[in-house]
Amino acid sequence: MSPEQRREQLLDLGVRLFATRSLEEISIDLVAAEAGISRGLLYHYFGDKVAFREAVVRRAAADLVAQTEPPVEGDPLAKLGHSVAAYVDFVDASYEGYLSLVRGAASDPTLRAVYDEAFGRLGERIFEAGTDLVPDTPASRLLVRGWQAMTEEVVLAWKAGETELDRESLLELLVGSLPALMAAVPVAPPTGP
Amino acid sequence: MSPEQRREQLLDLGVRLFATRSLEEISIDLVAAEAGISRGLLYHYFGDKVAFREAVVRRAAADLVAQTEPPVEGDPLAKLGHSVAAYVDFVDASYEGYLSLVRGAASDPTLRAVYDEAFGRLGERIFEAGTDLVPDTPASRLLVRGWQAMTEEVVLAWKAGETELDRESLLELLVGSLPALMAAVPVAPPTGP
Repeated sequence: MSPEQRREQLLDLGVRLFATRSLEEISIDLVAAEAGISRGLLYHYFGDKVAFREAVVRRAAADLVAQTEPPVEGDPLAKLGHSVAAYVDFVDASYEGYLSLVRGAASDPTLRAVYDEAFGRLGERIFEAGTDLVPDTPASRLLVRGWQAMTEEVVLAWKAGETELDRESLLELLVGSLPALMAAVPVAPPTGP
Repeated sequence: MSPEQRREQLLDLGVRLFATRSLEEISIDLVAAEAGISRGLLYHYFGDKVAFREAVVRRAAADLVAQTEPPVEGDPLAKLGHSVAAYVDFVDASYEGYLSLVRGAASDPTLRAVYDEAFGRLGERIFEAGTDLVPDTPASRLLVRGWQAMTEEVVLAWKAGETELDRESLLELLVGSLPALMAAVPVAPPTGP
């Protein structure tokens, strides 16, 4: 295996560990033991623990963006449904790691940058899909950002067992809420009485 | 002044400092200097720095809940408008402290508890206002929670200057978005084809 392939393999392992562990729990010892390699080799590939965690979280964020990519064909609402379902599945499969990223991003600037980039990419995609579903105005951009925060809150609450809704009802609620919000965006600035 | 009054006065000062400073910046030295008292006296009233910060953030959260209390009279949407405007004004006036509470709540269990209690209280109020605006179902409870997360994200982005919307348009958007979301809640569970 080339050094690059070896590095990728170790990152794959880190991302698998990320699914069921918080970022803080992904130690060099754990990863070295799981990979059957020495700690020294892991340091050789990634520099230090912080750099390895950063590489893992960047890879996980890239996986999230890739997995939520909508199909090329289909109407805008079907594409949105595909992306939302993929987001729910990602959070479902990588809850511990994702939650630690969301929480860590609040205080750690590096995690914040990774989180913001992925969050921004997912939001931008909604506008790239065309204006049939979402007009491109300052108000709608602000609401899409709010809808993303709402989606994250709701999916994390669902995954934590804080609601009795099943997955299908959750998806229906989230996908239906974006066009509903857009219907509330004023088409022109409000005028005085 | 009684010890209780003196304690309240020091808390008032802490909450004033919270408006323009993060929780981490509210040091015992700063508060003692601003109050013109000794550090020892401050420790006497509050125990330690962490306990003082906790008391300040509890008071700030209580202020937020009190200031967003809707009027007794009025239709549900007008009441909601009153609460949302008061929330925007609170974040506007206490941005630094509020942001540090939101961020700190992600990692600090004590701040999380204070935050969750206030967040829960503001959400519960929407259901207490009656079911004209918001039906009380698992789906609508989840969406109200999501709407609160959306409102926080949107107001913090607005305050940070990340949108060109003015205050009136922001309020219109937020107040209009809750009934819009409720219109997207299915009235019955989805049935198969």
